[in-house]
Amino acid sequence: MSDTDSLARLAAVIESRKPANGGDPEKSYVARLLYKGPDAFLKKIGEEATEAVMAAKDCDHGGDVQKLVNEVADLWFHSMIALAHYGRAPSDVVAELARREGLSGLEEKALRKAVAREAEPKS
Amino acid sequence: MSDTDSLARLAAVIESRKPANGGDPEKSYVARLLYKGPDAFLKKIGEEATEAVMAAKDCDHGGDVQKLVNEVADLWFHSMIALAHYGRAPSDVVAELARREGLSGLEEKALRKAVAREAEPKS
Amino acid sequence: MSDTDSLARLAAVIESRKPANGGDPEKSYVARLLYKGPDAFLKKIGEEATEAVMAAKDCDHGGDVQKLVNEVADLWFHSMIALAHYGRAPSDVVAELARREGLSGLEEKALRKAVAREAEPKS
Amino acid sequence: MSDTDSLARLAAVIESRKPANGGDPEKSYVARLLYKGPDAFLKKIGEEATEAVMAAKDCDHGGDVQKLVNEVADLWFHSMIALAHYGRAPSDVVAELARREGLSGLEEKALRKAVAREAEPKS
Repeated sequence: MSDTDSLARLAAVIESRKPANGGDPEKSYVARLLYKGPDAFLKKIGEEATEAVMAAKDCDHGGDVQKLVNEVADLWFHSMIALAHYGRAPSDVVAELARREGLSGLEEKALRKAVAREAEPKS
Repeated sequence: MSDTDSLARLAAVIESRKPANGGDPEKSYVARLLYKGPDAFLKKIGEEATEAVMAAKDCDHGGDVQKLVNEVADLWFHSMIALAHYGRAPSDVVAELARREGLSGLEEKALRKAVAREAEPKS
Repeated sequence: MSDTDSLARLAAVIESRKPANGGDPEKSYVARLLYKGPDAFLKKIGEEATEAVMAAKDCDHGGDVQKLVNEVADLWFHSMIALAHYGRAPSDVVAELARREGLSGLEEKALRKAVAREAEPKS
Repeated sequence: MSDTDSLARLAAVIESRKPANGGDPEKSYVARLLYKGPDAFLKKIGEEATEAVMAAKDCDHGGDVQKLVNEVADLWFHSMIALAHYGRAPSDVVAELARREGLSGLEEKALRKAVAREAEPKS
């Protein structure tokens, strides 16, 4: 199965966990987060982002790179729960990334901004 | 092009921006981040996670859901730069998500943990 | 000057930077953040938190502990800008910390919760 | 008691919770975090930063400002645990803030940087 088929399948599972679709907060972790509401899953995005950063820092000192992969998976997973709650899917994120046309336009703008920033004194 | 191709193509572009592959920090935003090293792109993960959370909170009060999609795209994009630096790709993340087998095993464990936590007094 | 005076003085400076108090976004960084509104300074809280975490991780491998102090200072500083915007001051935070009575009550609750959580399988 | 006396007292309590000082992970939340090591309390910094940001966003829509104060207190509290682990105290953070001389020098530098950044196209 292709990557995105996996992502789409996961998005479908999350969709089925919505309370409106019969998701049971007593039986499903995702249903529970969706039932509790935005703060419950948004908080996890901040938490998993920090864990991904720490796992990456550990990679510089012999840490297991698979741990970084796992933390990024957690981060993307909880992002997908948030997207589902607001009616969007990973395909929308991928479409946005693709729309930026192979980075070229994005990079040009972002680079000009980064260069200007670095020309300034550090605070 | 399929979504899978989009993610894989973006990963290939990021790969080509590595200094070792000829990426030029004066011409490419990604090359610049990779050249500056981990703290430069890891910091962006924390920043974009916070921006995604804020965009989501705004959706509860009439905010544009596309802004959430854009912020999640930024978050995934900078995650992919970190993965590339440490020799991994989005396909590894998607494989990890798929490995968790449609959430069922993951959910069961996570749910037991969440229920136990909520049975306790709030701090 | 005592530490208390330092925090209170800093809070007073931030207060004076509010647009309503004559703060000039063209001349003052704080006035600029307050003028731009919540997302501008809240984003910095997420960013500085990540930088503090990275500086701490570096301390485990010979990094300069003063860098951690500096990043925590940045984090507290931007927290104080947010507090000011919403009509609160560092003294309110310190009062809340003091109210928790030397940690004892807080610790007891938090510990029960943490122990229960660890008794569960890891996800 | 003054603000900083409260902060210093809290720092002393945290200090006493270090395993080397007899802190018992079975009886104290702080001792438990210190015993588990950096990732345990650093993760909390990312988590509490996100909760502070969410509480602030809620204030724009009738949320309780005391919740923001509580979240910032949690954020500062876990920052203090990290500082203690690395041999520093809140007085070091306050000294750093004071050293920046009433913001003036800091503001001038930060403002030049912010202005340059905003002159660039948004990415």
